[in-house]
Amino acid sequence: MKELLSIINLTESFKSFPSIGEKSAERMAYYLLDMDQEKVNFLIKSIEEARTKVHQCSNCGALIDTSTCPFCESERKHDTCIVVAYPKDILTFEKLDTFKGVYHVLNGEISSIKGKSIKDLRVDELKERIKKEHIKELIIATNPTIEGETTALFLAKVLENEDIKVTRLAHGVPMGGNIEYSDNLTILKALENRTDLK
Amino acid sequence: MKELLSIINLTESFKSFPSIGEKSAERMAYYLLDMDQEKVNFLIKSIEEARTKVHQCSNCGALIDTSTCPFCESERKHDTCIVVAYPKDILTFEKLDTFKGVYHVLNGEISSIKGKSIKDLRVDELKERIKKEHIKELIIATNPTIEGETTALFLAKVLENEDIKVTRLAHGVPMGGNIEYSDNLTILKALENRTDLK
Repeated sequence: MKELLSIINLTESFKSFPSIGEKSAERMAYYLLDMDQEKVNFLIKSIEEARTKVHQCSNCGALIDTSTCPFCESERKHDTCIVVAYPKDILTFEKLDTFKGVYHVLNGEISSIKGKSIKDLRVDELKERIKKEHIKELIIATNPTIEGETTALFLAKVLENEDIKVTRLAHGVPMGGNIEYSDNLTILKALENRTDLK
Repeated sequence: MKELLSIINLTESFKSFPSIGEKSAERMAYYLLDMDQEKVNFLIKSIEEARTKVHQCSNCGALIDTSTCPFCESERKHDTCIVVAYPKDILTFEKLDTFKGVYHVLNGEISSIKGKSIKDLRVDELKERIKKEHIKELIIATNPTIEGETTALFLAKVLENEDIKVTRLAHGVPMGGNIEYSDNLTILKALENRTDLK
């Protein structure tokens, strides 16, 4: 189909993104042909800026586009720190607009399949920060998967001797979810962690 | 969340595409940060080329990126012409790699909601082509929706006096589909258009 090369190239480009299949990529390509030039310019500018400006903060590991990290600045409460596996997880907490503490990105989770052990994670950096920034509580927010759970347990073990509170995000039935369709493990966790109503 | 401006801008850009929700857009933005520079360059080049090169053929209405239209060239069989509503529908037929005839894009369908009548479609151009290119059969391939059906019927009416065969794509149960889950209208059409097996 050399006849539609420009459109095929564009479709291929979009298809390389996660969760974009052939049909979605095609729809995106044809949509882009009809888009306002202003919007196309914004898209290209956004791509170029993100690629040139965004880098990882050497302290907390967040992806930032400024020279000083807005998550590490003194205005934020350094006594509470959410520990996440990946930089993108920070976005989930920032959207709440209620958490004013700091973050620490591990840059991965312990995984035998991917050959990642606790040594490959940013744990030494975390220990240093606990002392330097006088962190009082670590909220471990790795994913509720085998890898995430393993990482949380290892981390708690490694931090055993530190004078610090280590907590984990609660597991249970998601809000708006349906008990009937929840899996066994979720229901078990929800029972285990049941809360007093009176 | 001014803290993540570059990533937010990128997410917003991706979100403006059809069928891309907030979560998919975020996933795409973070994926783009990790992509090979080569792939990013290809993406930007594809966008720019598609925007500058792609234009509509004045004869058949296809979106092309060459000065002469590859769908209108003399090698193709001009006696059979598939009539589609939108340029992107051509891709569906080209993928089959069996149709070697020509196309005609109407640039829309008759729709009272969108205020589009038969006069807004490229019908005069079609009539001219029938004479000039000696087209013998028109295969009307508008969508199997109210708008598409109306357009097909109007088109057949308008071409009543032309010495030309006008056909319509068959409707029926889709291949690999399930009769149980087919809607009534599809089953009705499939019964109506049943074919002889012996």
